[in-house]
Amino acid sequence: MKAVLVLNAGSSSLKFALYPLDASNSGRVAAAPAVSGQVEGIGARPEVSFKTAAGERIQEPVVTGGSQGEQHRDALEHVFALLERHNPTVDIVAAGHRIVHGGEHYSAPTRLEESVLRTLDAFVPLAPLHQPHNLRAVRAVAGLMPRVPQVGCFDTAFHRTQPAVAQAFALPRRLSGEGIKRYGFHGLSYDYVARQLPEIIGERAKGAVVIAHLGNGASMCALRDGRSVASTMGFTAVEGLMMGTRTGSLDPGVMLYLMEQKGMDAKALTSLLYKESGLLGVSGISQDMRTLLASDAPEAGEAVDLFCYRIARELGSLAAAAGGLDALVFTGGIGEHAAPVREKVTAMAAWMGIEIDPAANTDHARRIDTAASRVAVAVVPTNEERMIARYTAETLGL
Amino acid sequence: MKAVLVLNAGSSSLKFALYPLDASNSGRVAAAPAVSGQVEGIGARPEVSFKTAAGERIQEPVVTGGSQGEQHRDALEHVFALLERHNPTVDIVAAGHRIVHGGEHYSAPTRLEESVLRTLDAFVPLAPLHQPHNLRAVRAVAGLMPRVPQVGCFDTAFHRTQPAVAQAFALPRRLSGEGIKRYGFHGLSYDYVARQLPEIIGERAKGAVVIAHLGNGASMCALRDGRSVASTMGFTAVEGLMMGTRTGSLDPGVMLYLMEQKGMDAKALTSLLYKESGLLGVSGISQDMRTLLASDAPEAGEAVDLFCYRIARELGSLAAAAGGLDALVFTGGIGEHAAPVREKVTAMAAWMGIEIDPAANTDHARRIDTAASRVAVAVVPTNEERMIARYTAETLGL
Repeated sequence: MKAVLVLNAGSSSLKFALYPLDASNSGRVAAAPAVSGQVEGIGARPEVSFKTAAGERIQEPVVTGGSQGEQHRDALEHVFALLERHNPTVDIVAAGHRIVHGGEHYSAPTRLEESVLRTLDAFVPLAPLHQPHNLRAVRAVAGLMPRVPQVGCFDTAFHRTQPAVAQAFALPRRLSGEGIKRYGFHGLSYDYVARQLPEIIGERAKGAVVIAHLGNGASMCALRDGRSVASTMGFTAVEGLMMGTRTGSLDPGVMLYLMEQKGMDAKALTSLLYKESGLLGVSGISQDMRTLLASDAPEAGEAVDLFCYRIARELGSLAAAAGGLDALVFTGGIGEHAAPVREKVTAMAAWMGIEIDPAANTDHARRIDTAASRVAVAVVPTNEERMIARYTAETLGL
Repeated sequence: MKAVLVLNAGSSSLKFALYPLDASNSGRVAAAPAVSGQVEGIGARPEVSFKTAAGERIQEPVVTGGSQGEQHRDALEHVFALLERHNPTVDIVAAGHRIVHGGEHYSAPTRLEESVLRTLDAFVPLAPLHQPHNLRAVRAVAGLMPRVPQVGCFDTAFHRTQPAVAQAFALPRRLSGEGIKRYGFHGLSYDYVARQLPEIIGERAKGAVVIAHLGNGASMCALRDGRSVASTMGFTAVEGLMMGTRTGSLDPGVMLYLMEQKGMDAKALTSLLYKESGLLGVSGISQDMRTLLASDAPEAGEAVDLFCYRIARELGSLAAAAGGLDALVFTGGIGEHAAPVREKVTAMAAWMGIEIDPAANTDHARRIDTAASRVAVAVVPTNEERMIARYTAETLGL
């Protein structure tokens, strides 16, 4: 069985999946992976968990030592050994990687030759928490399976169709020229969802569409004719919506105040903005939407209300970028499963002609708008891993 | 002649005007000041310029020395002497001050007793560039004219009607509890314009209205039933729209990047965000909209386009806050005089049912929407000084 290996390497984790090639399927890969799993705890005590094709669950420690870089490599070697042991008939014909940053350069998935990797190295300062780990995994695979072609799938690429005004900050030109601009993220998710929309909302998929990717990280994207015209995340993944532990957009004057009045430095501010804020910070209870929706505490309600309010505000802003609104699409863990969030957001969007069917919403139906709604409202599960497999097959012509 | 003295004290400047009481006029003060003028260069070589009731222009140096605080006091004494010399019949019955920050506490103009001043002192860290100078002028007047009642008119007060979600950042509760929230500014301008709207747009003034105050500082406010429900400026006057030299909203990750990669500290970032960005930074040419509109340079066009795009995006976001859009109102130097800016913004807002009459727009007519436009579009000159005079007369029951 020929298969595409999908890898998503973070600082302390490595997610993997094997997607069999399937020419009869859209995107030329199977709808579900043959096997998948992850390594967690890299840098500390890495452990691999894995579900075989037979449904058996395996969990075992990775024998490793030394630097974090060596641990990443050892983890990958362990994964390859597991895959070989449990799936001896599988032939890995390509590897596809999630790579957070493709800069201004890459507007599509790209085969990862050494020259490309050197270009991508230059984007490390733009995404220091993710890019080095993404690239390390690519080089590790190249060492272990030198003949297997690899493809980089960028979170930023889908947004390169945005007009210049959507990508610009009002900063001095020299800084924009250095690459301080709005890149946008979650592009794999948006493209995956956008490709399914014609089946779900018909012709409106070509119109003005806003997709809300609401997970622990959350962003929204405005599309016109299936292409990104604006997004809430910009230079980094902290801009835009309130998230599980991230502030989202914040008056820059607040940061100056915290520096001047409280002596906070970049490290303290990074921790505050990325780890201590969002649903967790506002509620003081949890970063998990399920916990907050189940809670009676007023603080939980305040956090949920603020989360939904900011989505409704960004929806208006993104409709302005798209020149209207023909469809609103919810995806991501919260978008797919939190009916009360969809209910609150769409209630605030009634002014745009949105009306949802409460029963369809509670059932997480694919379409939740009423017949009278001027705007189609859909719930579409996303699948970034499958998108990577599909991109990889497409890029290599498999 | 009884008159209200209006004072607007900045770090290096002091603007003043005398508004005669006029019971026959709305707001109980005359439409125009009897005299007005300003002191500039406080801290360096202060000079007062002044236009007498007879139309004579006076410009003379202020004799002063010592600290900036003493210079402020000397400047004020000089102004009083001038007013007395040129308007011997004027009886100053009250003084009204622009005060940038009223915190969460003050939702209306307030008589400035010593206890109030002490409360306002506590807001200095929230607005270190303006609040100390505002309060110094109050105390100087109290020393020079101890019997004259004084009223503080807060830029923030008009926004205290906003719902909690519009005033919140997604920061940890302890920081919100310390007062790190969205206050909003330009409230004197919004209130002045809002009070005129019923005459100009009739019943729609009670509906969903967005006012764009576009000057060298720029912000927008959403109103419902004449009350603020949301605004683009939040904790400080740098959030929101792109301005003459200010960035407006900016991905917080950009600031972390500039701190980490370029070693910028609070002072350098403050200069970058407040003085080097906005129209000036993007164009590399000028902070003045008139200059940019007259320029053929592509960089000037880029700056104007970004300025207008961000207004159009915020318009969508604020309509979401107001639950729709019945009227859009332009005010401030750019809003009142830059027809091409109004044209670009309203063209991008066509999706909301906005249509303007190009001839009316070029003429800066009071109403510039067509008969077919679903949304009223108005151009209304603002007058913050007159609003202060009016607030002062109202608050004291003059």
